[in-house]
Amino acid sequence: MFRKLLTFEEAQKKIDEQFKPVFLGEEEAVLLEAYNRVLNEDVVSTLDIPPFNRSTVDGYAVKAEDTFEADENTPATLKVSGAINIGEPPNVKVGKGEAVEIVTGAPIPEGADAVVMVEDTQREDADLQVFGAVTSGENVMKKGSDLKKGALVLKKGVVLGSSEIGVLAALGLTKVKVLKIPMVAVISTGAEVTEPGKPLPPGKIYDINAYSISTAVIESGGKPVYFGVVPDDKAALAKAMQTAVASADMVITSGGVSVGPRDYTPQIVDSLGKPGIVVYGIAVKPGKPTTVGFVGDKPIFSLPGHPTSALLIFYLLARPLILRLAGRPVGAMRMVRAFAGSRMFSAKGRRTFVMVRLEFDENCRLIAEPVESGASGAITTLANADGFVEIAENEQFIDVDQEVAVVLFRGFAAKA
Amino acid sequence: MFRKLLTFEEAQKKIDEQFKPVFLGEEEAVLLEAYNRVLNEDVVSTLDIPPFNRSTVDGYAVKAEDTFEADENTPATLKVSGAINIGEPPNVKVGKGEAVEIVTGAPIPEGADAVVMVEDTQREDADLQVFGAVTSGENVMKKGSDLKKGALVLKKGVVLGSSEIGVLAALGLTKVKVLKIPMVAVISTGAEVTEPGKPLPPGKIYDINAYSISTAVIESGGKPVYFGVVPDDKAALAKAMQTAVASADMVITSGGVSVGPRDYTPQIVDSLGKPGIVVYGIAVKPGKPTTVGFVGDKPIFSLPGHPTSALLIFYLLARPLILRLAGRPVGAMRMVRAFAGSRMFSAKGRRTFVMVRLEFDENCRLIAEPVESGASGAITTLANADGFVEIAENEQFIDVDQEVAVVLFRGFAAKA
Repeated sequence: MFRKLLTFEEAQKKIDEQFKPVFLGEEEAVLLEAYNRVLNEDVVSTLDIPPFNRSTVDGYAVKAEDTFEADENTPATLKVSGAINIGEPPNVKVGKGEAVEIVTGAPIPEGADAVVMVEDTQREDADLQVFGAVTSGENVMKKGSDLKKGALVLKKGVVLGSSEIGVLAALGLTKVKVLKIPMVAVISTGAEVTEPGKPLPPGKIYDINAYSISTAVIESGGKPVYFGVVPDDKAALAKAMQTAVASADMVITSGGVSVGPRDYTPQIVDSLGKPGIVVYGIAVKPGKPTTVGFVGDKPIFSLPGHPTSALLIFYLLARPLILRLAGRPVGAMRMVRAFAGSRMFSAKGRRTFVMVRLEFDENCRLIAEPVESGASGAITTLANADGFVEIAENEQFIDVDQEVAVVLFRGFAAKA
Repeated sequence: MFRKLLTFEEAQKKIDEQFKPVFLGEEEAVLLEAYNRVLNEDVVSTLDIPPFNRSTVDGYAVKAEDTFEADENTPATLKVSGAINIGEPPNVKVGKGEAVEIVTGAPIPEGADAVVMVEDTQREDADLQVFGAVTSGENVMKKGSDLKKGALVLKKGVVLGSSEIGVLAALGLTKVKVLKIPMVAVISTGAEVTEPGKPLPPGKIYDINAYSISTAVIESGGKPVYFGVVPDDKAALAKAMQTAVASADMVITSGGVSVGPRDYTPQIVDSLGKPGIVVYGIAVKPGKPTTVGFVGDKPIFSLPGHPTSALLIFYLLARPLILRLAGRPVGAMRMVRAFAGSRMFSAKGRRTFVMVRLEFDENCRLIAEPVESGASGAITTLANADGFVEIAENEQFIDVDQEVAVVLFRGFAAKA
């Protein structure tokens, strides 16, 4: 079956047209384990915060009017009638001419409407001199002034970080409703690959992709379901893919998509349900043999067998779908600007991605140096590439010293 | 006891002088769970990759010399003597004048030293015409050319991402030695706080810090050990801190460090072992009452009770220590440049940190707008602040429209 290769944009468009970010359901997470989860409820405050009028300073709770005339030369004189411990309801009232000792955070007692700072007073036993006037409400944090009961505190869809988890704790919550994490089945195929941990038969190499892609799934907010290497046999692969489609929210295979007679991955996808394959090869380098299909709403990516190509296409096309299923913002990948260290050539008529290593030259200019890729150097490329540079279809090459945008696979600073 | 406040730099220096990033030990991690762990061994290749000479194209394995004269008009004629399946050891040899069918990735058979691409041939039964010459080694990836047995593949200290985990899989590994994660005890103190999930007694508020700081510990590569709220009682707090020091690699308390009579956290630290408290208050705003001590090699941070202040000082001073204990690079926190939306004032003689919210104005300029902080707005600040702006000790204020560097608490793009 011959189908015309799609351009990169056409492939993206086909995928976007077909993809529905279906709701995967919610679960309850214990607050201490809710870090980096996506909130699936609008959280409304069930209490006023603070729940009572609170002093914001150490000093004396008073009636403000009792201090109105006070200044450094003519202090007001009040009688200390008690003290309020922090964390306890007040057991005293403040009458006219009275003051009650109070610390930061303690509840304002009945009768008082302001707090005089300890620095502005002088005390001898029960006699308190106040050397400055306070206005009603001064040094008092009003009940509900931080958050009113019924106020919307956190919106559905927020990714929970330390601040957000702190806010939920402030409401007394210990559990919270979060979106389920998308399950992504990861399958390697190909007669030449063997699972790590097993003996290596002659003529075979260890499978890299099930591991590197599973890890990339975690990085993208998904949970990998590791299928390992499925024997290179149409029935076995069909059975594995059927299980994968039934049990996961998305399926990613690698290897087995080629021009050879054993290229049955697309046939299997088509056989599993409608609409089947929607992208059959893309005019990119590397990654040309990529196919993308859907069984119902579930996306099925079949990536090339070459580990760097597989990861690249994963980042470009599969990662955004996992993020959207996870309810996360699809931010652009991190980029840095650098200068080409060597001339980089494009593949004729294909969007080309050149793997590069970043390094600073003697003038502290950031240089993007191509990493040998392609047929050789599968592991070397993976280990050494910091990211990639894109060359458009209509460009022939990027020249030495030309400024380029490098899309990073990981934090570059962390490696330097 | 009165001690002079240290400047921010002095406090950092005191901490750096005392801190030793001790080795916390290693553990074995299953490769699929090693994502984002720190490798604690130099990984050396135990095999040649590829383990055999491999074809990089689909075509025919030949003796290069048999094609030397071939071109489009005078093809070389060879006899196809067999085929090699991918993933299997070759069961044929290539003799003079012979060719063996081969696919990409399959092992080169004995006798052959090059592969002719299928596009350059024409075949009728066993007769093969070759329309182009190949040189010895052409379209062959040599055994060990990607990675030689004995080569250093990944260095101790690398943080494992998808590429690195792929590389480890390529070597057939399923387990790897990683650094232990630092355990950080997180304790809240103060008579006014109650643990979330419990009923809220009058005069109290829910504790935020044990949750927000535990989460920030995770973000910094540590594992929080949640102690919750310890009763505001010297014996109880001393016991909890003793347990914390004995069981964790670092301790972080919040609240209870103030000028009040109940300020016994520093006394307890001093009583637990040498050198005790090394930083007793810092000339910063907020965060002035921060104390830092060491019991042996274990750092003990006592942060203010105000949630935003506690998180801020955590990020500035405690986070780098957790990263170093974890064996991770202490990267700078993420920053963006923005313009001050309002005038921001500093506290006289103290390094001042102003919490800000970021937003774009109508001209798409990024504006840093101060978030109400301080005594009021504990939750509001936590929920709304994207980061902070620093004002030096000798500056009085930052003016409206002045360009400022905003240190981000989290990804800003993710929130916008």
